[in-house]
Amino acid sequence: MIWAAWWAAQAREREEAGLVRTLRPRPADDPTTDLAGNDYLGLSRDPRVVEAAAAAARTWGVGAGASRLVTGTLAVHAELEAELAAWTGQPAALVCSTGYHANLALVTALADPSTFVVSDAHVHASLIDAVRLARARVAVVPHGDVDAVRRALATHADQAPGGRALVLVESVYSVLGDAAPLVALADVAAAYGALLVVDEAHGLGVHGPGLVAAAGLGGQPHVVLTATLSKALGAQGGAVLGPVALVEHLVNRARPFIFDTGLAPTSTAGALAALRVARDEPWHADRVRARMAALAAALGVPPAAGAVLSVPMPSPHAALAAQADLRERGVRVGCFRPPSVPDGVARLRVTASAGVADAAWDQALAELARVVGAAREAA
Amino acid sequence: MIWAAWWAAQAREREEAGLVRTLRPRPADDPTTDLAGNDYLGLSRDPRVVEAAAAAARTWGVGAGASRLVTGTLAVHAELEAELAAWTGQPAALVCSTGYHANLALVTALADPSTFVVSDAHVHASLIDAVRLARARVAVVPHGDVDAVRRALATHADQAPGGRALVLVESVYSVLGDAAPLVALADVAAAYGALLVVDEAHGLGVHGPGLVAAAGLGGQPHVVLTATLSKALGAQGGAVLGPVALVEHLVNRARPFIFDTGLAPTSTAGALAALRVARDEPWHADRVRARMAALAAALGVPPAAGAVLSVPMPSPHAALAAQADLRERGVRVGCFRPPSVPDGVARLRVTASAGVADAAWDQALAELARVVGAAREAA
Repeated sequence: MIWAAWWAAQAREREEAGLVRTLRPRPADDPTTDLAGNDYLGLSRDPRVVEAAAAAARTWGVGAGASRLVTGTLAVHAELEAELAAWTGQPAALVCSTGYHANLALVTALADPSTFVVSDAHVHASLIDAVRLARARVAVVPHGDVDAVRRALATHADQAPGGRALVLVESVYSVLGDAAPLVALADVAAAYGALLVVDEAHGLGVHGPGLVAAAGLGGQPHVVLTATLSKALGAQGGAVLGPVALVEHLVNRARPFIFDTGLAPTSTAGALAALRVARDEPWHADRVRARMAALAAALGVPPAAGAVLSVPMPSPHAALAAQADLRERGVRVGCFRPPSVPDGVARLRVTASAGVADAAWDQALAELARVVGAAREAA
Repeated sequence: MIWAAWWAAQAREREEAGLVRTLRPRPADDPTTDLAGNDYLGLSRDPRVVEAAAAAARTWGVGAGASRLVTGTLAVHAELEAELAAWTGQPAALVCSTGYHANLALVTALADPSTFVVSDAHVHASLIDAVRLARARVAVVPHGDVDAVRRALATHADQAPGGRALVLVESVYSVLGDAAPLVALADVAAAYGALLVVDEAHGLGVHGPGLVAAAGLGGQPHVVLTATLSKALGAQGGAVLGPVALVEHLVNRARPFIFDTGLAPTSTAGALAALRVARDEPWHADRVRARMAALAAALGVPPAAGAVLSVPMPSPHAALAAQADLRERGVRVGCFRPPSVPDGVARLRVTASAGVADAAWDQALAELARVVGAAREAA
């Protein structure tokens, strides 16, 4: 069979390259200290968030029951959208089923082959897929390079005066953990009539209402956000935040929003409860940042702008061995190796999660310092 | 501002065409009889499903906390995948966050510009977007036309001997409610070494383990399914079902699966509880089919193969007026008008949901027969 032979050949290639990935189900009573996940504020298990989700299942049922435009928009969706918009300082919000859906919805409803997209080299896979699906003309610029963005927009403005252009960045980048120069980017976008799209997946919550708001750019009509409800807000889903006219446009035109069942009431209500905790109790975010500072100091690397510290390791083998060693000692961390890293450097990825209890955190930090230090000495 | 002017121009076009779509949030105490949604078996509010979701929030937290390959695969995901596979007669399953994700994951991991895709003209938007994202070569064939599929595959086999080909169909099509000729399609696919992809979004649950299983095609290595957990299973999410080698391929290669947080534990456990009810209590599906027969007879149209009856109306205006009239009488139905229908005929869409209480169903049926009859007489 043609397909079976192809799957087998692909599997052999993966094995020979040492790049086989497998799913490892976590048991409910897993005693491991999880420093690999994205539940940055520990809100996924906050009793208020848990009980809001449970109550929503009883009030609304487990599913939304239909796409948002048919009968799948519930009052709890509208409530979450209003509070997300108010919190981030945006005029309007649209909640989607995943962050991937939010990025696809936004970009495919705005861009077509006549649109010019300038994309930072480190943006998330969902933004890359979104541009590809939209078939937009794209210029990928070096990471964090505002001048490269400016040059690309200037060239486009010369070639297609009055043409629509998008700039795609993240407020905090996933792999390296660095922050985007948002004010400079917003200035450049404004100068060329471009729309700046900022993915706040790793910024929202860890920096309260996000780094766009912190930069004083909330509500600027040429700055649009996407966010995820599955990281700092501990649930599932995504959102687009921006002008009312944009959200109306998406409701009418964004296929990844229109042709999808509404976000489950449990996730919607859970995210709403988590938003209220994150908004009203800033000490959860403070704790993440304090832990990040301690973690970075203990491992001798600069702190990350978000909740995830990227720790360069001497080699892919050393990174894997350190990860396995930590796992045996009850600490789970992430490990990124080539080709999943933009610069070829293997890394441990460690989350400074506020959800880990103090004693477990202190012990994990000591294990980490020891294992990473030993790997460096051996190199 | 270039973008604001464009949004305004697009909004004017929608208004002039009478095609403005808006979200209308449902209140929790909505007394309307909902015959527009996709909760076909009424399981979204089944107390066992609701309590499974609530318990999962307490056990696992509200979110999965990470992507599936990092630490976001929970034992409850593995359990759902095992029971979905066993129920549908497939060797393996992979659960995704939405049905849209499942279709994108499957098609983009299998197809590239060297792959040939034969797509039925009526497949869902998510399959169309998936083919577009994969940049596969595609032939869209007339709806339900097995000979056209055969001719397309034969031409491809001549042009590219040994090349990979996919055939995309649905077991029950959404708009017209008709069923695909699965046995004939599977024979044609087998003859040309092609993989037949069957979207069971509207077949699973309404026909027990689905129409692929009913056709005796469960476990055939050249027949692969996708499904949604947000319709008959009353939750949120999607799944791909097929050979073990396919699922391993997706885990390693499907970007819409890899770069997405795992499905929320509440939706996962809810779908699992609903699967068990649908599997162990076939009378829910029997009830849908009995209601479909009564509904079709009352409205004088042939019954649909799934749970949604498509009722042709004399004009788009008549369809809208009937929908509004029914709404005032406490019955919500769907309405499809051009350009959202493949043949230009406006339709009411009425779900024969098992979840509606008998008295409300009987009353809704009487209102429907009266309103649809009056519209036909007036035409």
